Amino acid sequence: MTRFEVLILGNSSATPKFDRHPTSQIVNAHGQFFLIDCGEGTQTQLYRYGIKGTRINHIFISHLHGDHYLGLVGLLSSQHLVGRKSELHVYGPPALKEILEVHFKHSDTHLRYPLIFHPTNPHKQEVLLETDHLKVSSFPLQHRIDCTGFRIDEKERPATLKKEEVERLNIPTPYLRLLKKGIDYVANDGTVYLAQDLTYPPPTPRSYAYCSDTVMNENYFEAIKGVDLLYHESTFLHDRVDRAKETFHTTSLEAAEVARTVGAKKLLLGHFSARYRDLQPLLEEARSVFDHTALSEEGSWYAVGYKQ
Amino acid sequence: MTRFEVLILGNSSATPKFDRHPTSQIVNAHGQFFLIDCGEGTQTQLYRYGIKGTRINHIFISHLHGDHYLGLVGLLSSQHLVGRKSELHVYGPPALKEILEVHFKHSDTHLRYPLIFHPTNPHKQEVLLETDHLKVSSFPLQHRIDCTGFRIDEKERPATLKKEEVERLNIPTPYLRLLKKGIDYVANDGTVYLAQDLTYPPPTPRSYAYCSDTVMNENYFEAIKGVDLLYHESTFLHDRVDRAKETFHTTSLEAAEVARTVGAKKLLLGHFSARYRDLQPLLEEARSVFDHTALSEEGSWYAVGYKQ
Repeated sequence: MTRFEVLILGNSSATPKFDRHPTSQIVNAHGQFFLIDCGEGTQTQLYRYGIKGTRINHIFISHLHGDHYLGLVGLLSSQHLVGRKSELHVYGPPALKEILEVHFKHSDTHLRYPLIFHPTNPHKQEVLLETDHLKVSSFPLQHRIDCTGFRIDEKERPATLKKEEVERLNIPTPYLRLLKKGIDYVANDGTVYLAQDLTYPPPTPRSYAYCSDTVMNENYFEAIKGVDLLYHESTFLHDRVDRAKETFHTTSLEAAEVARTVGAKKLLLGHFSARYRDLQPLLEEARSVFDHTALSEEGSWYAVGYKQ
Repeated sequence: MTRFEVLILGNSSATPKFDRHPTSQIVNAHGQFFLIDCGEGTQTQLYRYGIKGTRINHIFISHLHGDHYLGLVGLLSSQHLVGRKSELHVYGPPALKEILEVHFKHSDTHLRYPLIFHPTNPHKQEVLLETDHLKVSSFPLQHRIDCTGFRIDEKERPATLKKEEVERLNIPTPYLRLLKKGIDYVANDGTVYLAQDLTYPPPTPRSYAYCSDTVMNENYFEAIKGVDLLYHESTFLHDRVDRAKETFHTTSLEAAEVARTVGAKKLLLGHFSARYRDLQPLLEEARSVFDHTALSEEGSWYAVGYKQ
């Protein structure tokens, strides 16, 4: 099966503690490695979990709080030092460009590879990247400063041919592509061969959404509707919902409520406050509302779809 | 004995590998914690080794290559989040101020404690900080961009009184301070009491110097003359001296040559290239020239003076 899975590099909120690290994760989508957020120490975490930086061609930054991007300059510099030549695309708030330029100016760094910056739009949903099989988009979240979530969708795939059947019936090659698209084949003698009889249905497209940081807010529900895996921040337990609102964060209970409301198949909690050494209570709280919940653990891979 | 010692938080050059971290160290000078350089992940290293950020009131940044300062914004932000109220002084290249301001502007961070920035001078030696017992100065190094080393000196201390002797002789209190300064006491009857007989000599002032990053260069030798402990970068083995020159770094052999020439009592090697998993050859190379050499190890404290 084509790989679609998430590796957690950091699941901590702003003050890293208990060997948890600031936010960062790798999404392996069909062998493409996307990096989502890049908190301080991300390059070390990548090294720890055996991910070569050269495998990453697209980096998505949600917002400009330090725990989500302070590892970026270090990672980009190291890629320069190890001799990277291939393009690297960074998607993030417009001001990130200024931050990177200030760093590179004062360190007199002239990257030996093309760094292509794509500003995100904090006000509306937008497609950032589209390949033959995947689509990555950003959508507005509601945090203390401009912030976007990200969603990765598999595109509809064509059906797979029932090879033996097709060969037995001697269907001409040009029609095979049409059959895969669901178009029936009509032979010269008028016989109709139904596409549905000659193909296996394609796998249902899978989808992943990333929501960190945000206060719970219906405005982003449409953007993450029905995803197979939802990573949602759950900084606090619900007894601190006031603190959560004040700091534009979410509680575990709320994260679960989001997952339930948008019809997510599975919920992955993250962005845990340094207040909690033991995370089990956050998991239990979320499960009281939405059973298919897991605590994100650094170093673990989580499958998107199918297995739920 | 009054504490004067160095804790290594990171001894790696630019690309962190083998669980070595970018450059950073704590100098405990008489109970004051100075942070010298602050590579990415410094706050995590501080946490790992049990150093509270609130103990640090002075941070010294040598230059603006990422591996020497990319942990600074995260550390300053975390200090804000944990409710720090006391002044924090940062000494570094003038452009560091712009870098910090850009970060704080875009993350909409308004520190709740006073952050006082002191620009260093890359062209001449300067005293940055002076207390009753200590003096911290910067001096020019020669790197690809402006860079300074740092030197911490204990000041001369007064002698200690031989208490019993002084009491037995009934020397009036106002004269005790003078005795400690080496001034003899002449009694009303004309008897002379020699200061040297009534006091223990003060301990010899100790000194520490930090040189990273730099190409070996006589211009900074005067500034580090005779220090008890010299931390000197030794990025490469001497078979790569060309590469060292090209990147404005030093080899182990050169670091040892510096220590020997300036009459340092002990040499501590650091800033190791990711090229070397095993550091023993760097140590052996340095010891062939300067015996009192040690490899800096992360998490270890190194005494300044006396013990050598």
